[in-house]
Amino acid sequence: MEVTRTNFKDSLSTVYSAIDEADFLAIDGEFSGISDGPNVSALTNGLDTPEERYMKLKKHSMDFLLFQFGLCTFTYDQAESKYVIKTFNFYIFPKPFNRTSPDIKFICQSSSIDFLASQGFDFNKVFRHGIPYLNQEEEVQLREQYEERRSQSNGSGNPSYISPNSNKGPGSIPEEHREYIGRVIEKVESLFTTSEKTVDLEPCTGFQRKLIYQTLNWKFPKGLHVETLETEKKERYIQISKVDDEERKRRERQKQEREQEELNDAVGFSRVIHAISKSGKLVVGHNMLLDVMHTIHQFYCVLPEDLNDFKEVTQCVFPRLLDTKLMATTQPFKELINITSLAELQKQLKESPFKPPKVVTAEDFPSYDTAQEQLHEAGYDAYITGLCFIAMANYLGTFLTPPKAHIPSRSKLIEPFVNKLFLMRIIDIPYLNISGPDLQPKRDHVLYVTFPKEWKTSDLYQLFSAFGNIQVSWIDDTSAFVSLSQTEQVQIAINTSRYAESYRIQTYAEYVQGRQQVRESQGHT
Amino acid sequence: MEVTRTNFKDSLSTVYSAIDEADFLAIDGEFSGISDGPNVSALTNGLDTPEERYMKLKKHSMDFLLFQFGLCTFTYDQAESKYVIKTFNFYIFPKPFNRTSPDIKFICQSSSIDFLASQGFDFNKVFRHGIPYLNQEEEVQLREQYEERRSQSNGSGNPSYISPNSNKGPGSIPEEHREYIGRVIEKVESLFTTSEKTVDLEPCTGFQRKLIYQTLNWKFPKGLHVETLETEKKERYIQISKVDDEERKRRERQKQEREQEELNDAVGFSRVIHAISKSGKLVVGHNMLLDVMHTIHQFYCVLPEDLNDFKEVTQCVFPRLLDTKLMATTQPFKELINITSLAELQKQLKESPFKPPKVVTAEDFPSYDTAQEQLHEAGYDAYITGLCFIAMANYLGTFLTPPKAHIPSRSKLIEPFVNKLFLMRIIDIPYLNISGPDLQPKRDHVLYVTFPKEWKTSDLYQLFSAFGNIQVSWIDDTSAFVSLSQTEQVQIAINTSRYAESYRIQTYAEYVQGRQQVRESQGHT
Ligand SMILES: Nc1nc2c(ncn2[C@@H]2O[C@H](COP(=O)(O)OP(=O)(O)O)[C@@H](O)[C@H]2O)c(=O)[nH]1
Ligand SMILES: Nc1nc2c(ncn2[C@@H]2O[C@H](COP(=O)(O)OP(=O)(O)O)[C@@H](O)[C@H]2O)c(=O)[nH]1
Repeated sequence: MEVTRTNFKDSLSTVYSAIDEADFLAIDGEFSGISDGPNVSALTNGLDTPEERYMKLKKHSMDFLLFQFGLCTFTYDQAESKYVIKTFNFYIFPKPFNRTSPDIKFICQSSSIDFLASQGFDFNKVFRHGIPYLNQEEEVQLREQYEERRSQSNGSGNPSYISPNSNKGPGSIPEEHREYIGRVIEKVESLFTTSEKTVDLEPCTGFQRKLIYQTLNWKFPKGLHVETLETEKKERYIQISKVDDEERKRRERQKQEREQEELNDAVGFSRVIHAISKSGKLVVGHNMLLDVMHTIHQFYCVLPEDLNDFKEVTQCVFPRLLDTKLMATTQPFKELINITSLAELQKQLKESPFKPPKVVTAEDFPSYDTAQEQLHEAGYDAYITGLCFIAMANYLGTFLTPPKAHIPSRSKLIEPFVNKLFLMRIIDIPYLNISGPDLQPKRDHVLYVTFPKEWKTSDLYQLFSAFGNIQVSWIDDTSAFVSLSQTEQVQIAINTSRYAESYRIQTYAEYVQGRQQVRESQGHT
Repeated sequence: MEVTRTNFKDSLSTVYSAIDEADFLAIDGEFSGISDGPNVSALTNGLDTPEERYMKLKKHSMDFLLFQFGLCTFTYDQAESKYVIKTFNFYIFPKPFNRTSPDIKFICQSSSIDFLASQGFDFNKVFRHGIPYLNQEEEVQLREQYEERRSQSNGSGNPSYISPNSNKGPGSIPEEHREYIGRVIEKVESLFTTSEKTVDLEPCTGFQRKLIYQTLNWKFPKGLHVETLETEKKERYIQISKVDDEERKRRERQKQEREQEELNDAVGFSRVIHAISKSGKLVVGHNMLLDVMHTIHQFYCVLPEDLNDFKEVTQCVFPRLLDTKLMATTQPFKELINITSLAELQKQLKESPFKPPKVVTAEDFPSYDTAQEQLHEAGYDAYITGLCFIAMANYLGTFLTPPKAHIPSRSKLIEPFVNKLFLMRIIDIPYLNISGPDLQPKRDHVLYVTFPKEWKTSDLYQLFSAFGNIQVSWIDDTSAFVSLSQTEQVQIAINTSRYAESYRIQTYAEYVQGRQQVRESQGHT
């Protein structure tokens, strides 16, 4: 089901109940770009630490926009031994909500945009009809804005700011506005002597409106309802109405309800994420670290500096995560599955020893035709990801005695895969552990090598040709990690390099220490 | 006429001849955003110097994408006393050209995108079918890439890079690739003994391909044509063909032509700008500084740091510019025209004393219905801009004796308006003078005031209430320029401020000097 700004409000209860009834959820995001750095490979060094990788992704990927969010809910039908699914494709766009709302800027990467375009992605749906959103801080700010405005027009004021004019009463009206305000007071006084119920003032500036509110609250604390309205040309003007106390309260209430509605509209798509979060259900994704980071960044809060803080936030937003790419590259699947891109994974999970799960689309939901691939539409990718999870989970059931054909998402069997997010292209750390400390692999067979920028990989192979198999992880034009096959070779390599002029070799430990020192000295300046 | 990647090549001759035959050209651009700064008004201080304004626009506006370019050519038909127009709407997108081409990132500003969306802008046309482009430097680089590849496969090599392996011959093949290259040589040798004409190698890495090219050129300097092709899966492999000398040359030529074609495709939309530039014709725009900056930035070169260098580049790219907003705010139009936004300007120029010009659309070009406005489509805006120019130019003809109804774009009468670009919201400098030094208004009635961030405009009015009319130009939260109506008041204001604690006043001259010092000290560290 496609969800845009147009049908968002009407679809929300359908989304909520789909989440409520589900056994697990699968998600996927499409972004306006992946990497703002020099190139993807420089951002994903094979010997990054989890901290480094997190910092790189945070720095170079968060300015892109998550503009399509796919959600597929999976509900197991015990009687029929099949899953019933509901798929949602949300189009997301930070349409400025009002004149004071943040005017979000986001980066587009042409290769990503071009790729999505070639897949038939509908950019018009995003930009014309995308659902807006606010993160938690923006939501609070907007709520406070409403409250402040309310208390201002209630006359209860907010005296917390210091300004030479903040003392109440007409004394605080600047010279050049006194005449204008005087005329407004006259108009209101004459309103009380006629049978007219309301008077519309001419459009005026925000500062004048503020003066009017202050003055009328002070001079006519009761009997008036004052409200800012907009003309067709979007000019703001004040309407003043004579009201008795009850009428005044009724209007206040109405206004409050209208404001609550506006607030909900502005929070928009974030409400779906709140619902997923509150459900506490297993959320499945494929290679989902960036999806998780973007989701938190856009709909919850600016990502924390520290990896451990990020893990904490993640556990609040997504208490139970499962990454199918990590699962597929872990025992017992590792031996059975060669290629773990989503499309290839799905293909391999259709073959023995795996069994494609029985899945039907819920009534009234458009169903995907898996024969005719729609990969890279977020909803479809979420759906395929869910299928892959079920096939792998059920395969685990074949090891039980007696074997079980259906493994539910709460089973102990899948626990080893929970809250571990796949780390792309790191040689010796397969995953980011969201619910605990990360693996600390030994890196004492690793050398840090610096050299002239004319060098190629082949030069490094040549340099280390005496040491048998090596593995090169480029850092930048003039440095790389070289992993030797035997730790004992490290000292030999370093000794040989002593008198070299064109290149320099350090142990990994020396490298880490050096970097630490640089950081500390930067921290101190 | 809409021009996308799909019909660009076929339309190019139409575009070229429209430019060639035209009397003048009107242009307009649509961007993915306007200002990347805190807010537009902070970027456009009323007392910016031209240098400051240029630097701000360069810093905060050039990362957006010019993604629609409107061109309207106007050709005067003497016999019929009317203009014949041709309108083009180009959709522009930096689709990566090949695997090594730059992966452009650009910023989108949600308010701008939302605005264009509300006008029915078709983002799919941009992102799916936009015409690519290269600036001059990228064009040169790509040409060099082709030439290097050609000389490499010619065996003439490029020995300029220093690498331990750069000596020629099989000696430079790294250990682990020797066996592989040996097998390739065997294959080629056996090709010479059979009747087969070509042999396809397995897909291999770029490094291996390079080794193959080197080795074959060295071992078989004649009699072979070696070429890299792509499989359907986009894997690159080498095809080797036996050829006599003539056949070999023919193939080289073919390849060269194919490459020239590819190069042209990559230069793409920039060719249109080159043609406009070469024509030397008058180019008319409305409030066109940003259009000019973006056009140069995307299709010519990274904008220079220095304003004078920018003026020089601009004169190369657009030798004759005219800004209708500047024209409309200058004598004798200033008195006659109240509002100078494009839509309002057009309306006013339909009324006496102006005469709407006689304009027809050229055959085979879709015509705009001016009744049904399509403002903010670049082609339409360019068209309207041209209409405004004609109406104003012809009005100048009414002052001649005898009056002239048609003033051509080369007339002396419009010379005073040429190469002066409107400067938005600068109080005392109406335009940026592209072909000379800028105006240097006196600013000795201006004060630079700093204060606590709680202050509002009204606090400033209050502070200076003794001095009559003042004009406030906000710089940021805690500073503003205050223009007094009389220069003599400046010293009084400064004297009064001596003992103030919450605010501070400097003359404009002191402010400029202080800033100069800050800059110099920064330049020295
Ligand atoms: N000097 C030098 N630097 C390289 C070479 N190959 C890669 N690099 C550097 O390492 C980075 C990552 O390269 P790599 O891992 O091969 O991935 P790729 O850029 O996607 O092909 C590049 O951006 C370069 O800065 C090379 O042959 N010579
Ligand atoms: N402290 C303070 N700063 C202001 C005030 N009004 C404007 N500014 C600052 O000046 C900048 C430009 O404001 P302005 O020219 O009024 O344009 P606007 O932001 O589009 O309404 C703002 O972003 C603020 O930094 C004010 O009343 N008090």
